[in-house]
Amino acid sequence: MDSIKAENGNTAILLIHCPDQSGILATVTDFINVNGGNIVYLDQHVDREQKVFFMRVEWELKHFVIPQERIAEYFDTLYAQKFQMYYRIYFSDYTPRMAIFVSKMSHCLFDLLARYTAGEWKVEIPLIISNHPDMQWVAERFEIPYFYFPVNKDNREEQADAMLELLAQQRIDFITLARYMQIIPEKMIEAYPNRIINIHHSFLPAFIGAKPYHAAYERGVKLIGATSHYVTAELDAGPIIGQDIARISHKNTVKDLIHKGQDLEKIVLSRAVEKHIDRKILTYKNKTVVFN
Amino acid sequence: MDSIKAENGNTAILLIHCPDQSGILATVTDFINVNGGNIVYLDQHVDREQKVFFMRVEWELKHFVIPQERIAEYFDTLYAQKFQMYYRIYFSDYTPRMAIFVSKMSHCLFDLLARYTAGEWKVEIPLIISNHPDMQWVAERFEIPYFYFPVNKDNREEQADAMLELLAQQRIDFITLARYMQIIPEKMIEAYPNRIINIHHSFLPAFIGAKPYHAAYERGVKLIGATSHYVTAELDAGPIIGQDIARISHKNTVKDLIHKGQDLEKIVLSRAVEKHIDRKILTYKNKTVVFN
Amino acid sequence: MDSIKAENGNTAILLIHCPDQSGILATVTDFINVNGGNIVYLDQHVDREQKVFFMRVEWELKHFVIPQERIAEYFDTLYAQKFQMYYRIYFSDYTPRMAIFVSKMSHCLFDLLARYTAGEWKVEIPLIISNHPDMQWVAERFEIPYFYFPVNKDNREEQADAMLELLAQQRIDFITLARYMQIIPEKMIEAYPNRIINIHHSFLPAFIGAKPYHAAYERGVKLIGATSHYVTAELDAGPIIGQDIARISHKNTVKDLIHKGQDLEKIVLSRAVEKHIDRKILTYKNKTVVFN
Amino acid sequence: MDSIKAENGNTAILLIHCPDQSGILATVTDFINVNGGNIVYLDQHVDREQKVFFMRVEWELKHFVIPQERIAEYFDTLYAQKFQMYYRIYFSDYTPRMAIFVSKMSHCLFDLLARYTAGEWKVEIPLIISNHPDMQWVAERFEIPYFYFPVNKDNREEQADAMLELLAQQRIDFITLARYMQIIPEKMIEAYPNRIINIHHSFLPAFIGAKPYHAAYERGVKLIGATSHYVTAELDAGPIIGQDIARISHKNTVKDLIHKGQDLEKIVLSRAVEKHIDRKILTYKNKTVVFN
Repeated sequence: MDSIKAENGNTAILLIHCPDQSGILATVTDFINVNGGNIVYLDQHVDREQKVFFMRVEWELKHFVIPQERIAEYFDTLYAQKFQMYYRIYFSDYTPRMAIFVSKMSHCLFDLLARYTAGEWKVEIPLIISNHPDMQWVAERFEIPYFYFPVNKDNREEQADAMLELLAQQRIDFITLARYMQIIPEKMIEAYPNRIINIHHSFLPAFIGAKPYHAAYERGVKLIGATSHYVTAELDAGPIIGQDIARISHKNTVKDLIHKGQDLEKIVLSRAVEKHIDRKILTYKNKTVVFN
Repeated sequence: MDSIKAENGNTAILLIHCPDQSGILATVTDFINVNGGNIVYLDQHVDREQKVFFMRVEWELKHFVIPQERIAEYFDTLYAQKFQMYYRIYFSDYTPRMAIFVSKMSHCLFDLLARYTAGEWKVEIPLIISNHPDMQWVAERFEIPYFYFPVNKDNREEQADAMLELLAQQRIDFITLARYMQIIPEKMIEAYPNRIINIHHSFLPAFIGAKPYHAAYERGVKLIGATSHYVTAELDAGPIIGQDIARISHKNTVKDLIHKGQDLEKIVLSRAVEKHIDRKILTYKNKTVVFN
Repeated sequence: MDSIKAENGNTAILLIHCPDQSGILATVTDFINVNGGNIVYLDQHVDREQKVFFMRVEWELKHFVIPQERIAEYFDTLYAQKFQMYYRIYFSDYTPRMAIFVSKMSHCLFDLLARYTAGEWKVEIPLIISNHPDMQWVAERFEIPYFYFPVNKDNREEQADAMLELLAQQRIDFITLARYMQIIPEKMIEAYPNRIINIHHSFLPAFIGAKPYHAAYERGVKLIGATSHYVTAELDAGPIIGQDIARISHKNTVKDLIHKGQDLEKIVLSRAVEKHIDRKILTYKNKTVVFN
Repeated sequence: MDSIKAENGNTAILLIHCPDQSGILATVTDFINVNGGNIVYLDQHVDREQKVFFMRVEWELKHFVIPQERIAEYFDTLYAQKFQMYYRIYFSDYTPRMAIFVSKMSHCLFDLLARYTAGEWKVEIPLIISNHPDMQWVAERFEIPYFYFPVNKDNREEQADAMLELLAQQRIDFITLARYMQIIPEKMIEAYPNRIINIHHSFLPAFIGAKPYHAAYERGVKLIGATSHYVTAELDAGPIIGQDIARISHKNTVKDLIHKGQDLEKIVLSRAVEKHIDRKILTYKNKTVVFN
C-alpha cells in the first residue's frame, strides 16, 4: 500500500500559495536542495490575473538536515512570512483518516470501500455515518463501524454536535459524502474547511439542487454529468475538484439517466478523494488548483 | 456529392410522430412494402412517458407504384388522419437551401463553408447575412453573396422585415447561426420554426446568455461545452440537438477557454447542420429525437 | 430488481439475424401484433454490405395468445425456416446465471459484485472460479462460493474438464472473465460460444497479449484503452462488445497507466455484462451488433 | 495575432533535456532571475525511469541584461556543458515558417488555412506542396503558392531534391502533412528531424499503414481514432504528439468511419501544429513531452 515509503523513505509535501513575485520558485527549490532534500515532484502554477503563485513540491527526507518536526517552523521563519505565503506541510508517513457519509445508495460507497480494502489508497476509514440504516449491511461486509444519525428538522443541531464529537474523537481529517442527501450544517463546514468532498450528480453549475437527472431529462440535454467539489455554505457552489460527462440520447428515460449517472458519480468522486489524499489540491477563493 | 441518388435513385424520407398505438410500425412498413418501396433506413422510438411514437423511414422510389407528387396525399388519406400523425415527407432529389448568419468570428463560418465547398453536404448556401461587415472577405473567398444588415435598437423591426424578404426571395429552407450575436426577432422564429440552428458556447443549461466562457472561468469548472439547438422565443432554451465538452484545468485563462471552445463550437454546429440536412431530427415539445 | 416484470408482467425477447429481404420487419411485428403481443422495444439494423438483417424485439406476454413454451415452435415453423433466420427467444422471467473467473486483481470483481448485491442486474452469480487463492476473501465478503483451480501446463485439460463439470452442474449460462490471466481452453470456448466475456486492458487491436500497459508506455501513446469482447480461439481477437479510453500524458508512469486503466477496465467490463444480460448483443461473423 | 508580444514585449523560450541531477531547476531559474528576466511560464518533468530532466521556461526579455543574440552563447558556456544539456532557445519575435503538404483531401488543409487566415497562430505559410493538382483551387482561394510535384517510383529522388531546394529557399522551419499520401524520403526526414508533423487516421499503433478505416471496420472496433506524430524513417512509428477518438457503432459503414474520422483528423492535426508553433513539444528517444 505504501510503496513510495518503501522505495524512497519518508517524504515531505509542501503546498503553497502566495502573491506572485519573481524568485519564489528558485528560493523554495534552493531551500530544499541546500539542505539535502531530493525533490521527487514539483509542479507550480501562476494565476496571472489574480497574481497568485501556487506550488506543490515533494522531497525525500532521508538526507534532509532539518528534522521533520521542525521543518514547518524553519520554513515559516525563513520564507513564509517574507513571501506572505499560505502553506501546508504534510508527511508521507502519516495516513489521513477519512469519514464517509452516506444515505441510501450503495454505488459510491462500494467504490470507495473496494479501493480502500484493495489498498489502492493511503487512507484510514474508521467510520461511516448515515442518516438512514440502509447501508449498515455494506459497512458490516467491510467491517467498518456504522453510525446511524437520524436527522430531521428538529434535531439538526444536536445531531451535528454529536457527529462532530464523534469525528473529533476519531481524529477524522476529512469527510467524503458518498451521495449523502442532507444539507451539511454550517458548523461542520467550518470545522472541516475544504475538507468535505461532495459528489453532485450534474455538470455544475447546471441543475443545482435536488433531482438533477429529472431536470436534465426535462431539458432534453444530450450529456449528463457529475461534479466533485468541496462543500461550502452555499449549496452546490463550492470549489469544483473534477467533472465528467456521459452521452445520452432521446432513447434514455430518467431511470436510464440515474443508472448511467451512477458510474460517473462513483468514478468522479473517487478521483477527487484520491487527489485529496495525495495532497494535490490547492483551493484559492472559490476555485481549485489540481496538480497532476 | 449525391452518392445515394447515384446508387439507388431517388428516395422518400418520412418523419412521423403520433400518439403511440400498437400496429403503427407494421402499418407504415406494410404500406411501403406492398406498394413496391424498398426500405433503406428505418429507425423508430417510443417515448413511453409521453406515449408518443416517432419514426424515420426512407425508401427507394424506383419501383414505388404511387407517384412521388401524390405520396403525401395518399399517406395522409390512408394513415395520417387515422393515427393522428404529425408527419413530413422529403425527397432526396431536392437540395435544401441554407442561409448562414454570422457576426465577427470566422471559425464556424469557415468550417461550414469548407464542408460545403468540399461537397460534404447536400445543401445550397445562396447567401450569408451579417450585422457586421467583418466577414465579407471570407464570403468573397468562397464566392457567396454577403448581405450586411446593421441592426440596432431602432431599426430591429425593419431590418427583420428586410431579411425575411431576402430569405423568402432566395427560397431559404433553414438558417444556421454561425456565432451570430444578435437576438433573433420573434417573427423570424415564427417563419422558420425549428429551422434556425444556433450554437451556444456552453453546455446548456449552464451559462445561458452572454460571455459563458467568462462565467465558466469564474465558476472554476473543469469542463467547457458547446450546445447546438433550435432557436425558440426564449433565449438559449430551445430544443437541444447536440452537445460536446472539452477538458480544461486551472492553467487555462479565459482566453484559452475561448480558444479551446472554438473547436468545440464549430464541430458541434456542423454536426447539427448535417443531421438537419439529413432529415434526422424530429422535435416534440421542447426536445429532439436525433436518429443515427 | 425486476421492475419490468413488476410493471408489465413477463416479456419475450426475440433476437434475429437472417439474409435481408423486404418485408421481414413487417412480418415479425405483424406476427406479434395479431397474436396480442404489445411491443415494448424494437430495434433493427441492416448490414447492407453483408446483406444481413438484425433485429431485437421485446413484447409483453400478458395477452399474447401463443403459450410461452410454444412461441419458439410457432415462430420456427411459420417464419424462421422461410426467412432462413438464426434466432433466439428469451423470457424476462428467467434469471441468467453467470460465473466469474478471476485471478489476483480485485477491481473488476468488486465492481461486478457491488452491482450484483445492489440488485442492479437481473442475474445470479452462483460461483467464482480462480487459478489463485487470492480473491477468496472477497468472495467470502459477498458470500459467494469460491472454487480454486490451480492451473499449470500439465493439468490444463483435467482442470478444464473439472471446471466444465462444475459450470454444467451449476447451470451456468455465461462466464465473465474479471481479469482472469489464463488462456481459456478451446473446449470451454466451444461449450460457451459468444458466452464468455473478457476485458482486455488496451484499445484492441493495439497491444494484443501480455503487458499492454507496458507496451503502451513504451510506444508513448497519449490514450490508454480497455476492450470488452467475447472469447474466441484466437487470443484477444473475438467480437468486440465495447471500448473506452482515458487520456494520459508524459507525466504518467507504467504504474499510473495500470492504475488509471483499472477504472476503465471495470466500467467497460460491467457495461458489456449488462448488455449481455439484457440480451442486447447479437454476434455475426466476428463482429457485434449492440442495441441501445 | 501576437498578443503576448504586444502586452509583454519579446520573450525567450528555453527547452531543455538532460540527465537528471538535483539543482538544475534552481540553477536555471536563478540564471534567469539574477539577470533580470521575468519568468512567465515554467513547466518541467522528470522521467524517473530514464533519469532525464525536461524543462520549458519562458521569460520576458525587457529587463534581461544579456543581449538576445548572446543568450545562447552564455547559457551554453555557463550551464549547458556542465549539465550535458540538449537545449534550444527560441524568441517570440520570430515567426516560424510552415510548409503544408497535401494530396487530394481538403478537410485538414481547410482547417489549417482557416486558422492561419484568422490569425489564430503565429506562423507563416509561404507554400503548399502536393503530388496532385486537386487542391490548387483551395490554395488559390487563400492566395498561397501551390507547387505540384508529381511523384512516382522513377522520379522520387529528383522530386525530393527539388522539394528540399524549394523548402530551403523559402526558409521553411517545419512541414505539416495534411493527409499527404506519399512516403516521405529519408533525406527529407533527415533535413527536418522532428519537424515533419503527420496525421495518421487511426489510434496508433492500431492500424498502421494504408486504409486504416477499412481495417477498423473489418475488426469491428467501437472507437475510431486519429494520431498526430513526427515523421521518422519507420512508417507510422514516430513520436506521438496527440491522439483522439470518436465513438462508432455497428450502424456505421466504412464511409461513415471515413466521414466521422475527418473531424478527428483535422482537430488532432491542428492541435499538434499549435503545440509545435508554441514550442511546447520536446522529443526524447521515440516519445514526446507535450507541455500545457
